[in-house]
Amino acid sequence: MKIINTNGRLGLVRPGGYVDVEEASNGEFGPDVASIYDRWDEFVEWAGAVDASSIVEVDPAGLGAPSPRPRQVFAIGLNYRDHAEEANMQIPTDSMVVFTKFASSITGPNDDIVHPGGSVDFETELVVIMGRKAFHVDRADAWSFVAGVTMGQDVSERELQLRPPSPQFGLGKSYPGFSPMGPCLVTPDEFADCDDIELGCRVNGEQMQKGRTGNMIFPVARVIEYLSAVLPLYPGDVIFTGTPAGVGVARDPARLLSVGDELVTHGVGIGEMHNRFVAPSD
Amino acid sequence: MKIINTNGRLGLVRPGGYVDVEEASNGEFGPDVASIYDRWDEFVEWAGAVDASSIVEVDPAGLGAPSPRPRQVFAIGLNYRDHAEEANMQIPTDSMVVFTKFASSITGPNDDIVHPGGSVDFETELVVIMGRKAFHVDRADAWSFVAGVTMGQDVSERELQLRPPSPQFGLGKSYPGFSPMGPCLVTPDEFADCDDIELGCRVNGEQMQKGRTGNMIFPVARVIEYLSAVLPLYPGDVIFTGTPAGVGVARDPARLLSVGDELVTHGVGIGEMHNRFVAPSD
Repeated sequence: MKIINTNGRLGLVRPGGYVDVEEASNGEFGPDVASIYDRWDEFVEWAGAVDASSIVEVDPAGLGAPSPRPRQVFAIGLNYRDHAEEANMQIPTDSMVVFTKFASSITGPNDDIVHPGGSVDFETELVVIMGRKAFHVDRADAWSFVAGVTMGQDVSERELQLRPPSPQFGLGKSYPGFSPMGPCLVTPDEFADCDDIELGCRVNGEQMQKGRTGNMIFPVARVIEYLSAVLPLYPGDVIFTGTPAGVGVARDPARLLSVGDELVTHGVGIGEMHNRFVAPSD
Repeated sequence: MKIINTNGRLGLVRPGGYVDVEEASNGEFGPDVASIYDRWDEFVEWAGAVDASSIVEVDPAGLGAPSPRPRQVFAIGLNYRDHAEEANMQIPTDSMVVFTKFASSITGPNDDIVHPGGSVDFETELVVIMGRKAFHVDRADAWSFVAGVTMGQDVSERELQLRPPSPQFGLGKSYPGFSPMGPCLVTPDEFADCDDIELGCRVNGEQMQKGRTGNMIFPVARVIEYLSAVLPLYPGDVIFTGTPAGVGVARDPARLLSVGDELVTHGVGIGEMHNRFVAPSD
């Protein structure tokens, strides 16, 4: 199953478009995408039996983030060996680098992003969206707590991210629009192997990152086990799972983002996001 | 004005107790404390004119956090010179240490806190709750975006907080209950000087921290200016503003928290929180 957030309404993806969930369910499920995760199991059951009567064409410009108002946003740093190496960081072994991207940075998969100045970089990531409350979950069961996955960019202003005296990554990764997500949520059963998804990005048509989630140091199930050993993850909570090699700051020469650049993010079985960097309007 | 979150209902503090807001407003304002910040200006106007008819006695055990479901939680590290020194950290000059406490860690001012093991420490903090959306705000105007202040503890498990390879503070400060807040929200006009509030804490009756917010490196208005230069703060958003000297790990000998310890947090003009550390139930 795939769902989209289209002009603020929940849609069920079908060949040629989508089914409006509120309409097709006669109001049993509302249009608000953010609140569907609290009733995820019930929704999945309904969606499996729905009669796809009226198919609406998707308006790409109207797509929003599949989880637009999560209670918690987690992000994992240095979760691919090749990226930890290019960043000259020690490779994590038994502990994860966990920070947040503040929720005001979330935006849709095709939205423009205001370039705030500074050293703005891309980080292509698989994003996990929770479908059940997960607390003290074992890695063997972890995927059953996931609603689905989507693509994300952990856009990062490197100077603020790494500012001394004690660099905390979150703020520099949280300018408005720095967390685009989409284009749709895909349930884990749609993948031949949900632990090995190919993903990457292009800037102005040039391939910059290409990787597979199978190369994560800590796979998705291990991340959920680690986080949920500390705190409960709620339905709708979002996990940015880390980026493979090829980010702009580590390239030679560096390839940071400027006003006018178009960042295309792709994940096989998920789709593409198209985000253009624009100048502040004032 | 002071407001409380009492057994899930919004109350206006009056001598001898509180006025139930939903009742006194004939339903113009609902009982849900979390949603009052989106209508803060309107609420303040109403509260200034309310006829305090029926006063209810406060049940201390029923108090909840004054902002129980913030969209964003910000925390400032090393914001008092004496604490930065005792932590052997470089004193920040023009840049702040900003991290999050994940929202699932929020609890009421008199709730028990499960001790998860490890090196659990206290950090007494003034907590700011936003009353208006603040984006690109100048420090001269910053207080006008604040609904009020309350007390908080930035409870911290030091090993997880400082875990290599690249210590990110948030997760180790976010076990369930690690962010108690309360007992009430106090509006800035209630203080002779809202930039110089005395605060501290005792463990089992022994004074551990005592400071004044006048000794912050970055005062509240400067913190709001700094954060809002990057992203919008929303009504109900919470800022933990940093802790003065005297935390357990920096004492000689160290005084970390154990099961059975009672942590009493006090702020002049705000009140006290009483949190007891208990063993996990399983």
